[in-house]
Amino acid sequence: MTSFRKARHADLPAIVRLLADDMLGRSRETVSDPVHPRYEQAFAAIEADANQLLAVAVDGEGGIAGCLQLSFIPGLSRTGMWRAQIESVRIAEVHRGGGLGSRFIEWAVERAVERGCRLVRLTSDKTRPDAIRFYEKLGFTADHEGLKRSL
Amino acid sequence: MTSFRKARHADLPAIVRLLADDMLGRSRETVSDPVHPRYEQAFAAIEADANQLLAVAVDGEGGIAGCLQLSFIPGLSRTGMWRAQIESVRIAEVHRGGGLGSRFIEWAVERAVERGCRLVRLTSDKTRPDAIRFYEKLGFTADHEGLKRSL
Repeated sequence: MTSFRKARHADLPAIVRLLADDMLGRSRETVSDPVHPRYEQAFAAIEADANQLLAVAVDGEGGIAGCLQLSFIPGLSRTGMWRAQIESVRIAEVHRGGGLGSRFIEWAVERAVERGCRLVRLTSDKTRPDAIRFYEKLGFTADHEGLKRSL
Repeated sequence: MTSFRKARHADLPAIVRLLADDMLGRSRETVSDPVHPRYEQAFAAIEADANQLLAVAVDGEGGIAGCLQLSFIPGLSRTGMWRAQIESVRIAEVHRGGGLGSRFIEWAVERAVERGCRLVRLTSDKTRPDAIRFYEKLGFTADHEGLKRSL
């Protein structure tokens, strides 16, 4: 039975492999042993920020079956509403299609509710139509454009 | 001459008025004197989070001409890349059309670069085509869907 929990430092190599095992991640990530120092620095920055939650899905044998990052963002607009944001969602190939992704997102939504968020949002690359349909089935509406600029 | 700086507590009533003076904000915000306690709580939460920057544009007479919120988000993906996110951007009606918005966004981008971010992103409601064009002119590309779910 799969369970969900906050990521530990020992999970980092498995998380990096998950991020790299992806259509877009392939060219963006660096898989090495030990993991690249930039991942270590990023893990430490996430750990140091009480408004970030890096989470993993763990399968019955203790293997890392998925990961996601949840950010809790305070804001003035909508009468001072906290919002939650989900990103870097990955489910291991072998665990896809069995509802794990949906349960993981609902687990993340529960964490957002616990933290007083009244909105959860995410962006999905337009080249991932399956991902967009997945989130729409979970009750998300694609009513925003997601814009970015590299620095 | 307009300048940009971190918001102070004394700016809060003017920021709330700006947020409310907007097509979508009108129904979402509460303008009162003193400001609603929820705005006070949100302002305190933003102040307490070193990865949030609430900023204002100040005109030559010291009036609040605009506001925005910048979030600095650590993450593992893209080899541990920090990303910056801009939201709740508002420019006072009387200050629109003169390039203030562009200069304010570029000021925010500079803060993101200072903090080591290599990507800046934002979402814009699809019912705001002018805003989307504005960001595209500033070099943003709308390659993501922005999805949200109310909690």
